[in-house]
Amino acid sequence: MNNFDVCLTPDLLHLHQLENSIVVVTDIFRATSCMVTGLAYGVESITPVATVEECRALQERGFIAAAERNAEKVDGFDLDNSPFSYMDERLIGAKIAMTTTNGTLSISKARGAAVKVLIGAFLNLGTLAAHLRNEPYDVLVLCSGWKGRPNLEDTLFAGALAEALKNEYSIQEDGALMAQRLYNQGKANLLSFVATSSHVRRLQRLGIHKDISYSLQHDLYDVVPVLRGGSLVLME
Amino acid sequence: MNNFDVCLTPDLLHLHQLENSIVVVTDIFRATSCMVTGLAYGVESITPVATVEECRALQERGFIAAAERNAEKVDGFDLDNSPFSYMDERLIGAKIAMTTTNGTLSISKARGAAVKVLIGAFLNLGTLAAHLRNEPYDVLVLCSGWKGRPNLEDTLFAGALAEALKNEYSIQEDGALMAQRLYNQGKANLLSFVATSSHVRRLQRLGIHKDISYSLQHDLYDVVPVLRGGSLVLME
Repeated sequence: MNNFDVCLTPDLLHLHQLENSIVVVTDIFRATSCMVTGLAYGVESITPVATVEECRALQERGFIAAAERNAEKVDGFDLDNSPFSYMDERLIGAKIAMTTTNGTLSISKARGAAVKVLIGAFLNLGTLAAHLRNEPYDVLVLCSGWKGRPNLEDTLFAGALAEALKNEYSIQEDGALMAQRLYNQGKANLLSFVATSSHVRRLQRLGIHKDISYSLQHDLYDVVPVLRGGSLVLME
Repeated sequence: MNNFDVCLTPDLLHLHQLENSIVVVTDIFRATSCMVTGLAYGVESITPVATVEECRALQERGFIAAAERNAEKVDGFDLDNSPFSYMDERLIGAKIAMTTTNGTLSISKARGAAVKVLIGAFLNLGTLAAHLRNEPYDVLVLCSGWKGRPNLEDTLFAGALAEALKNEYSIQEDGALMAQRLYNQGKANLLSFVATSSHVRRLQRLGIHKDISYSLQHDLYDVVPVLRGGSLVLME
């Protein structure tokens, strides 16, 4: 039985061996919820970059560019970090460049070493789990956290995936065990369970209530975004 | 209201400001459970050091020396890492030097920057909480984890202290929130709640059952170990 593990923040990624692992990157509020939504709505590709400067360089080369820092859109960019902005019909077939405070940084850290990098959110949980059930590799969920610290919502997603895959994968480490327990504790009402988390309070100060409840919905889309040649595209 | 925060592993300590914080170091299985037990039984001081070499140097200067690596005693040292070894009458008044895989490394990382460093375990939870209720500083629980990774038992202790201090301190960050939730989920039967954790499985392979159940007992001792001049002594 292959191993299912969870890395609670990118600042702990150095403790994990990725050579035989599929890495599932998650950033529930809101980068990976945006990615799943955009690709499900027909965006052609999303190129995640770590810095605002790289994002601007891609914008100058014709990409539609999305840059977020501290939960707000950076001046001079086209798109903000709300999943609802990715439902725009004008984005069908578009190439997007994206940088966010946490999520795109995680992807940058994971790429290269892992077998492949997939994108996970509650929005595509079931389809992602179904895909992973047939994989011969270990799985590591990389939670993006907040500026290096663990956060509740990404941990809950990791726990939800652990729970979905508990018959196919073995859990050996406490990070995954704690995530799974927290998800089982909170799953009956995730919205209320995350209500006092630091990032929800941060987003609520910015008036982003609807993004929160949207991003906690399970299985809205049957897509699995995968990183190919530096860009996220839908797995066929 | 001052802030109560939790650092899930020493590898994330760089994300925390310690200038206005009391740091409570915990390593439930088994370093801080040993420290609390030893000092409660009359050991004069315990000098935590990060390396086996430093421990040997103190042994040569007359300290009783305890060195543990990977949950086993290192050859050539006097004491192992079982709390029961610290109940020995011959240790009354003794000066002990100690190095362990995780716990003493945490103490080394915390000292210097923090207002003070205290030692926490379930064994002295109530007395420690009572002491902290009267402090004017922030509190950070530093979980020692296992080789940089978070672990369940230290997280549960952090959650127990969060729960004990919830009326006196404010929780702003998700690390503390997750610890508190996990403790509340598991507190009715901590022994069963930790039974599948990685470190319990590791210790059980070594036959150390009784150390596990002992270290999960609340409030056996009314002591607060504090780091003074590089050594742990009882707070008067």
